[in-house]
Amino acid sequence: MKRILLTGATGFVGRCVVGPLIDQGFEVHAACRNPDRAVALGAVGHAADLLAAGAGEDVIRRVRPTHLLHLAWDVTHGAFWTSPANLRWVGRSLDLLDAFVRAGGERVVMAGTCAEYAPSDRPLVEGRSALAPGSLYGTAKLSLGQILRADAAQRGYSAAWGRFFYMVGADEPPVRFIPAQIAAVLKGAPISCRHPWNRIDYMDVRDAGAAMAALAGSRVEGPVNIASGEGRSLDSICRTVADAAGRPDLYTSPDGEPDEGSSATVASVLRLRDEVGFVPERPFDARLREIVSAWVERGPPGPVDPSVRDVGRRGP
Amino acid sequence: MKRILLTGATGFVGRCVVGPLIDQGFEVHAACRNPDRAVALGAVGHAADLLAAGAGEDVIRRVRPTHLLHLAWDVTHGAFWTSPANLRWVGRSLDLLDAFVRAGGERVVMAGTCAEYAPSDRPLVEGRSALAPGSLYGTAKLSLGQILRADAAQRGYSAAWGRFFYMVGADEPPVRFIPAQIAAVLKGAPISCRHPWNRIDYMDVRDAGAAMAALAGSRVEGPVNIASGEGRSLDSICRTVADAAGRPDLYTSPDGEPDEGSSATVASVLRLRDEVGFVPERPFDARLREIVSAWVERGPPGPVDPSVRDVGRRGP
Repeated sequence: MKRILLTGATGFVGRCVVGPLIDQGFEVHAACRNPDRAVALGAVGHAADLLAAGAGEDVIRRVRPTHLLHLAWDVTHGAFWTSPANLRWVGRSLDLLDAFVRAGGERVVMAGTCAEYAPSDRPLVEGRSALAPGSLYGTAKLSLGQILRADAAQRGYSAAWGRFFYMVGADEPPVRFIPAQIAAVLKGAPISCRHPWNRIDYMDVRDAGAAMAALAGSRVEGPVNIASGEGRSLDSICRTVADAAGRPDLYTSPDGEPDEGSSATVASVLRLRDEVGFVPERPFDARLREIVSAWVERGPPGPVDPSVRDVGRRGP
Repeated sequence: MKRILLTGATGFVGRCVVGPLIDQGFEVHAACRNPDRAVALGAVGHAADLLAAGAGEDVIRRVRPTHLLHLAWDVTHGAFWTSPANLRWVGRSLDLLDAFVRAGGERVVMAGTCAEYAPSDRPLVEGRSALAPGSLYGTAKLSLGQILRADAAQRGYSAAWGRFFYMVGADEPPVRFIPAQIAAVLKGAPISCRHPWNRIDYMDVRDAGAAMAALAGSRVEGPVNIASGEGRSLDSICRTVADAAGRPDLYTSPDGEPDEGSSATVASVLRLRDEVGFVPERPFDARLREIVSAWVERGPPGPVDPSVRDVGRRGP
């Protein structure tokens, strides 16, 4: 019997992980503050505030999982890059990990981020590309991943580290770049971006969830990029959004060539494809058009954040 | 008023930090399990088990320190390289740090280790030499140091990371390399070492304590090696021990040249000397002879550990 403890099950990605885990034969136990929402997804729910002292140990004792998939973290838009909550999440994640391993747990997968990598215009390769996070968030994640790997080698359990890149989904409130552009176009406002030639690796969030579930069910060890492997310029994203909304007039590509200051955040997906055996189902452009169409029909899923800016080097 | 909270005050180095901190004008508050021992050293004592949830926050609330010097960690001989207690110490250290900063603390110094560096035969330079710990302990320390630095940049407090190399002291129980050699010679047993040409940076523990106190009182930021800057071969250490005990017959240098497999763990001390302004008072050879003489007079300070082996690449 494979029994997995999932944290962050009601988050943006977590919601897309439960189904694929069940499809793989896992008995899925979700530890979160609102377990009813996890139960609605098909998981066994356990009420837990994982930032509280001892909460991780408690839920491990109740569930006795063979697998741990730890996605929970503070990802409050805008704040999470710099939030001291990153320090508490590192500590509570290590407490949860230690309790899991002491209770006989076999395999752990945790969520890392593309923000661990040093800036590079080349595809980012696990175990090869330089790591040099420019934010407290990226540093906290990198540190947790390093300790996970060293502890797994030490105590002999199986561990992987899924590095999320950028994701897009239909039920994402317009607090991030793509949903904010869609919301603007739907209101009839012209859109623009300051760094149109920045190239970003975007993946449909349902694919990202399925990829993380596949990683959890595999025996692959170490860091694995969870990404599409394809970079899209912000220019092409804005153009697709305006086109799909039937308002191509609301976006005009800037003149000229990709400028010197542009950056790329694009993954190598060889490990995900060849070792985990996962290939995304949903091409990004078609998916983006679907999301725009869904919003045209029913409106955005939440209030628009006026502070949204370009996405750059940092991460999801 | 400079009020410093010191953890690990009753440990091997901690005992040598209290006096120099008081000499610098600090009001020294020690949080430890046996506060009486810290009080005997001149500190204000606070009973605290820093691995217990909330203990760090509690003592910060009581002391309201302007400075934090955090030395406490699990350094049980032999076990600490691999102990899962390293995970708990990372978490509790971050909790303590966050409580300190939220309470308005100004400057933090924490203890790192030479085990953070990748093996190298060249002097190890802060911010320049490669970091690649080969142990869970080194990884945990490196990770904590990375987060400290990123958080300090983020929240605007002052922070330094003192990387200890190897230390020697008169009241060290014979569970480590040098005291074990001394204990053997005093019993009339021949001594030897498997890697006589390994070169190690040893510092008198009183100098190491004074250096850490000087770092705490300075405004120097980032990693600083706490070391002598001089490498000693294990061969020369064994010879000095046997000579100083009046039993040169108990150690014979091996024939031949430094072998291929030998390693070096030697610090660059430019930052400590030129930025902190600290120079060790006690030359190592003379200090080693003093320690041997003291043991000849009064015997070793504790039971001999029969498992002691060579010191190598890893750290104190």
